[in-house]
Amino acid sequence: MAVLETIPVLLSSSSSSSFLDTSTVIALTVFFALLCACIIIGHLLEENRWANESITALLLGLCCGVVVLLITKFHSSRILVFSEDLFFLYLLPPIIFNAGFQVKKKQFFKNFTTILLFGVVGTVISFCLISLGAYLLFKRIGVTSLDIKDYLAVGAILSATDSVCTLQVLNQDETPLLYSIVFGEGVVNDATSIVLFNAVQSLDVSNIDLLTALKLLGTFLYLLFTSTALGIAAGLISAYIIKTLYFGRHSTDREVALMMLMAYLSYMLAELLNLSGILTIFFCGIVMSHYTWHNVTESSRVTTKHAFATISFIAETFIFLYVGMDALDIDKWKSSKASPGTSIAVSSTLFALVLVGRAAFVFPIANITNCIKKRPSTKIELRKQFIIWWAGLMRGAVTIALSYNEFANSNTTLTEDSALMITSTIIVVLFSTVVFGSITKPLIEAVLLRNAKPVHSDATDIPSLDDLQILFLENCDPSDQGGSNEPTRRKGSLSLLISNPTSTVHYFWRKFDDKFMRPVFGGRGFVPFVPSSPTGAADPQTS
Amino acid sequence: MAVLETIPVLLSSSSSSSFLDTSTVIALTVFFALLCACIIIGHLLEENRWANESITALLLGLCCGVVVLLITKFHSSRILVFSEDLFFLYLLPPIIFNAGFQVKKKQFFKNFTTILLFGVVGTVISFCLISLGAYLLFKRIGVTSLDIKDYLAVGAILSATDSVCTLQVLNQDETPLLYSIVFGEGVVNDATSIVLFNAVQSLDVSNIDLLTALKLLGTFLYLLFTSTALGIAAGLISAYIIKTLYFGRHSTDREVALMMLMAYLSYMLAELLNLSGILTIFFCGIVMSHYTWHNVTESSRVTTKHAFATISFIAETFIFLYVGMDALDIDKWKSSKASPGTSIAVSSTLFALVLVGRAAFVFPIANITNCIKKRPSTKIELRKQFIIWWAGLMRGAVTIALSYNEFANSNTTLTEDSALMITSTIIVVLFSTVVFGSITKPLIEAVLLRNAKPVHSDATDIPSLDDLQILFLENCDPSDQGGSNEPTRRKGSLSLLISNPTSTVHYFWRKFDDKFMRPVFGGRGFVPFVPSSPTGAADPQTS
Repeated sequence: MAVLETIPVLLSSSSSSSFLDTSTVIALTVFFALLCACIIIGHLLEENRWANESITALLLGLCCGVVVLLITKFHSSRILVFSEDLFFLYLLPPIIFNAGFQVKKKQFFKNFTTILLFGVVGTVISFCLISLGAYLLFKRIGVTSLDIKDYLAVGAILSATDSVCTLQVLNQDETPLLYSIVFGEGVVNDATSIVLFNAVQSLDVSNIDLLTALKLLGTFLYLLFTSTALGIAAGLISAYIIKTLYFGRHSTDREVALMMLMAYLSYMLAELLNLSGILTIFFCGIVMSHYTWHNVTESSRVTTKHAFATISFIAETFIFLYVGMDALDIDKWKSSKASPGTSIAVSSTLFALVLVGRAAFVFPIANITNCIKKRPSTKIELRKQFIIWWAGLMRGAVTIALSYNEFANSNTTLTEDSALMITSTIIVVLFSTVVFGSITKPLIEAVLLRNAKPVHSDATDIPSLDDLQILFLENCDPSDQGGSNEPTRRKGSLSLLISNPTSTVHYFWRKFDDKFMRPVFGGRGFVPFVPSSPTGAADPQTS
Repeated sequence: MAVLETIPVLLSSSSSSSFLDTSTVIALTVFFALLCACIIIGHLLEENRWANESITALLLGLCCGVVVLLITKFHSSRILVFSEDLFFLYLLPPIIFNAGFQVKKKQFFKNFTTILLFGVVGTVISFCLISLGAYLLFKRIGVTSLDIKDYLAVGAILSATDSVCTLQVLNQDETPLLYSIVFGEGVVNDATSIVLFNAVQSLDVSNIDLLTALKLLGTFLYLLFTSTALGIAAGLISAYIIKTLYFGRHSTDREVALMMLMAYLSYMLAELLNLSGILTIFFCGIVMSHYTWHNVTESSRVTTKHAFATISFIAETFIFLYVGMDALDIDKWKSSKASPGTSIAVSSTLFALVLVGRAAFVFPIANITNCIKKRPSTKIELRKQFIIWWAGLMRGAVTIALSYNEFANSNTTLTEDSALMITSTIIVVLFSTVVFGSITKPLIEAVLLRNAKPVHSDATDIPSLDDLQILFLENCDPSDQGGSNEPTRRKGSLSLLISNPTSTVHYFWRKFDDKFMRPVFGGRGFVPFVPSSPTGAADPQTS
């Protein structure tokens, strides 16, 4: 409670002294001014396909860091200290929640197997390769003081792709298949790499055997299922509360507040129970958009749709601004006494490992799923494999947060090599975000959209036979539950089951949903229209 | 960065340790769970006219405090430490901004003189009386160690009315005149009492003369004008940016983000320049609702209207939850070694002084304004004076924050009397919020609405002659600027000027607004309709 401190002379000293800590106020003022600048500049650059808000924020943060560095005469470039609490408690949850809330559910679940394979198996492959590569190569560069745990940690840290920048680069409407795979992978990947990282930290390195590996797998599966279940439960509870208690006397402010608070509560509960909060809040978002969102008033729908997106947008911009500003942290660069040559060697080694590590799972897994899939339109052709590989190369704030956690958090002072690892991670993050963030959009245009327009390369651009069958099934199934038991229609669905297993899972889910879930938890068509508010609001997704 | 700490055994210790400080996570989980509970219980109690969300939150906070007290075996009742930064940086700004954004501007400016008199002169009167009363009475009770500065601070602390609970108790639609006066007074009062408090803290007590008083007045006027100007400037800049830069390619997320960030930035800038952030953000809200809000898309309008209200609602509930939980802070009660008798004596003395201090300005000022006003319908009759007096008796978080600042922030340990002052302030806040918060609504019903229905006691329930004249003037004035120069209509307005000075100020403001302001900054009728979103959204206010 260090308030009413003597205010520095550089501020106008009126007789009314502030209650607030001046340095906090300065930091917040600078950050909010920069955020405003990012939004305005980002909007002006919208037409420019090389730039986006992430890169603007990153560069603006770098510039601001330089200015602060000059003002403080190279003592410090930072206005706020990078805090993992700030990142994991306040910035990441709204981004992931909004992603779940706005994701096209049908696309997501259609590609669920592929997403899981990429996100889990792929991340593990990448982790192994990067760890092994770093172990073999770093000694040649001259980095010697790292132990085996550090190398494993490096693997986990650099396996965490950045789903935030990916979201800005890929377009859900232009390339839905790619978007759902790359983004879905990003969410699962976040969870996987954090689990791997935690596992590495608690690992007894002297005793690695099959049992440890099995235990790790068990922990991972346990986390996956409990986290998902918690998220679904939180979403369903919010839907039930709003449907049951609020029925007939809706209050937009309370509905929106309850949705926000329940989502955040699910994240906190998951963290408290040592589960993966990211997975939890992601599934909470999905369930809320499927049930809760349909139970509230029209104005609540418009408000939640845009308010969640806005908060997520601000958090994303903040993160990049912050990473940019943090990159110039003079203490870290001073502690790492490595020559620029070594720094560049380590960074480029790490980046090369990231490239190889990602290539090593994207192409094999994509080809395996291609063999399994029968429909040619859902196959991932080489061109798309290349984009999936490319779009997942960006590294972001999760990487930096994990890197700080591993290398800066020890109670001892920063060793040279730890500082070197942190600065190299920052270089990799900056380089990948700026370079890949700016090239990806034009690349997608060049590789996919322009070349492939006549052949309709993206599977979901035109409704396939499957889609039409689903459409037919859905239209057969009126929104009141009664109609689904008619024998003639049932027969039609049975013949479809045999010919089309994937769509049939979706079909039976719809049946189950309409019969058991929606009557209890509400959802589209199961809650009477609430007329208190503007009409015609668009769905948050086209599921 | 105390992360990855050893997690207490009471938590399930899976192999995945959390990155986050466990105590923070626990505190946040409890707070968010309590917030959810408040919203649900508050909604269920909506029909009950004795309860509201503030009281529910306060009582729930008290209960939670008791539980924590029992769990920790009377070591601590607090999960989070009360921080003035949290309150002044994150909780108060959204509440005041939303108040400005949703206030009925016409009502507010119609009663502007009355509001200023109540908020400035009234607060000063109350401050003098409470300080004097405390100085004369406390020595008799046995409180001796306070110096003259402390007594003046007590006066400033207890002159700060609580605008948050008032908002929940009064209804803008049922009693618009009362609402605008009591709430408007609350906002100006907040600023006044904080200015007074700061002035007292920087005062040289040995040298009080006329010059000091004049200086104080000068400071106050300087703050009033610069803060208001800063708020208006921030609002106009946001309107200009959105009108000019975004024209033709609106993006709801960016518009909403920019409005939120600009408002918050204005508050931070005001604090940085040692102005009154509360006044600044209040006027920023008014200007944004008058210009910016009309420049954005329909969905941005719906979103901002409800998102701001929601954030403000969550902040309000959080504050009351927090005050309730903080009231049981065992350290404070232990430090104050006063007997229960002394505690009660001090608290009731303070409360009596609050009652007298408010009565001493409400009735005289109301009668003075009644003498000035010519129209009988705008006069404040005795019944309403009583309600104005009553509704402003609640004391809230500002009082607690100021009290902590004065009595708990000294570098020395808490003296007995300082602790006694803090606990007494807490008692006054709890008592006034619970008692007045629950009685005010029924009281208004009994005194105003029920008794007075046949005589239309509330001046604005029926359109008066003045209102009809304004309506006529406005209808004469088409929304395109051209029509305002026709000579015949001008003549009509000139004759009205002489007979009706108050409405004429409004009329000329409208003319100026339509001719100079709206063409530059946008506003209703000056920005073409943006069709991208749902139609028919209601105005956030009926100005």
